[in-house]
Amino acid sequence: MVTNIQNRQILLVSRPAGTPAAENFNFVSSPIAELTDGQILVKTLYISVDPYMRGRMSDRKSYVAPYALHEVISGGVVGKVLESNSDKFIVGDIVLGQYGWQTHYVANEKEIHKIHLNGAPASTALGVLGLTGLTAYFGLLDIGQPKEGETVVVSGAAGAVGSVVGQIAKLKGARVVGIAGSDEKVRYLTDELGFDSAVNYRNKELTKALRSACPNGVDVYFDNVGGAVSDAVLRLLNHGARIPICGQIAQYNLTEPDTGPRAQTFLLINSALMKGFIVSDYAARFSEGITQLGMWIAEGKLKYRESIVHGFDNTVDAFVGLFSGENIGKQLVQIEEQF
Amino acid sequence: MVTNIQNRQILLVSRPAGTPAAENFNFVSSPIAELTDGQILVKTLYISVDPYMRGRMSDRKSYVAPYALHEVISGGVVGKVLESNSDKFIVGDIVLGQYGWQTHYVANEKEIHKIHLNGAPASTALGVLGLTGLTAYFGLLDIGQPKEGETVVVSGAAGAVGSVVGQIAKLKGARVVGIAGSDEKVRYLTDELGFDSAVNYRNKELTKALRSACPNGVDVYFDNVGGAVSDAVLRLLNHGARIPICGQIAQYNLTEPDTGPRAQTFLLINSALMKGFIVSDYAARFSEGITQLGMWIAEGKLKYRESIVHGFDNTVDAFVGLFSGENIGKQLVQIEEQF
Repeated sequence: MVTNIQNRQILLVSRPAGTPAAENFNFVSSPIAELTDGQILVKTLYISVDPYMRGRMSDRKSYVAPYALHEVISGGVVGKVLESNSDKFIVGDIVLGQYGWQTHYVANEKEIHKIHLNGAPASTALGVLGLTGLTAYFGLLDIGQPKEGETVVVSGAAGAVGSVVGQIAKLKGARVVGIAGSDEKVRYLTDELGFDSAVNYRNKELTKALRSACPNGVDVYFDNVGGAVSDAVLRLLNHGARIPICGQIAQYNLTEPDTGPRAQTFLLINSALMKGFIVSDYAARFSEGITQLGMWIAEGKLKYRESIVHGFDNTVDAFVGLFSGENIGKQLVQIEEQF
Repeated sequence: MVTNIQNRQILLVSRPAGTPAAENFNFVSSPIAELTDGQILVKTLYISVDPYMRGRMSDRKSYVAPYALHEVISGGVVGKVLESNSDKFIVGDIVLGQYGWQTHYVANEKEIHKIHLNGAPASTALGVLGLTGLTAYFGLLDIGQPKEGETVVVSGAAGAVGSVVGQIAKLKGARVVGIAGSDEKVRYLTDELGFDSAVNYRNKELTKALRSACPNGVDVYFDNVGGAVSDAVLRLLNHGARIPICGQIAQYNLTEPDTGPRAQTFLLINSALMKGFIVSDYAARFSEGITQLGMWIAEGKLKYRESIVHGFDNTVDAFVGLFSGENIGKQLVQIEEQF
């Protein structure tokens, strides 16, 4: 019985105009209800903060429905079972859920599931062995279809998705060029992850730098960012190029319409393909993806890094930091153990 | 022996800035050379003028290489054999070639081939049973993949490609909405070709008119025009929509970069696919396409119209007219019989 625990939650209280700020969120506390049959009390260990959440904070069509105001922000979490009234979970089980930005949650047994990571840390269930790893896996292999010797460019390359995309493309025999936002990230990509080349997009001569990094043009462009970075890549497409559109983080906080050179002409003159996707399009194949990603990690062929912010109080800052590119790899918030 | 015939040719003498004008072209005449072994003298009957030719008049990357200055403009033609030194052709044969804007041509026997249209007029080899019909057939069926009950929107709907796209989509059981540039064209689409609805893009409330014509959203958008018309359609995409990019005629004569709302976000939030193509991507399957299109015509299921301008002197005007939307169906120039 843990009736004296307070559950802390972060609610969306207003819709951000531009970059989200503290005033858009409210921290509240409330007692935790008694468990009924089939329910489990979960304590949060890690909260996932992801760029796609920005879209849900606006009241317009995006991947998924907008967040409701004055409700807790939902999203991926890893937690530990504190109490169980279900015969499917025991105290201490590590579980994955979608209950979002709160320290505790009373789950019905169908809302969470146990994590089986074969020795990988629990946090990876939110990253390289979770939705961001799967996003990289399916977007690159199903839409991008890199072939040996082709050039694959990935933007947001040091992020949770991009870093996995580039490494999978290397495993498939491609020449891999990453685009990222700092010299530290550029070094990480080439020195630690084995990218063939990497370009800092803050370089004033981005087009020239990209051209030099891609002497044979671009066959696959895995796009996480959009905007001017993508405009520059589109100029280098080869005939038959494929462009998975995974995210457009450069655009999420715009308050004006996102305008720029229309992509259609670049697709037309190169018989190129551009396709948007969301990882849930591949839900039926998740176990295939997790198995393959887990094997590559076990074999030392796939590396990952996590950027971990400590403390529930810092969740909003960790989220906002995604848009200034503060993270390398998956951005997580770790909630301190209190029990 | 026809040594007294003069061959008239139209040369590109300067690259158009914006819409092509008379000054960009020059008419020249020259005597016709004696035939050597394996050569055939062809007299032009029909010249095809096509929007893609505008791209080749500029000195930049497009589908195919730019036209050279001071050379005859190449493109599809139907002609009749006047003289033959080849055992593969006899006088009177009707042939298809790519020798372009000239009244006569001395062809090597591999440069032309005989037309077999099973009773269809020779001019159709440049339209519904030629490259424009094949463009519609492969772009719609291979990329668009319309399914029964889906909504297919086609821009440039009254043109050579669009009019065939819409009719094939109807044959596949789709609801078909055409976008065209005059009320006459709108009536042609709905009254003669059986489109479910058609919208005049000069309508000031285009988005509203499209929304009303597509109450269930848009599953396939076959894009011939680009620009603001396409921007309006992108707002109506359904999840999993497919967008074959066939042409961007609204953009070909722009002297400024083609900017507008970036398409990427629309693709992202709908898991939609956009793919450029050129009909030669499907060269290996042309006979399949011609056979099917010919069957539909023979069965009365596929209608076509040709806009025919008479006289070689009017070739440039016929070409320029494409960009103000003067044609319904395939635009051709018919060269009068002189022999």
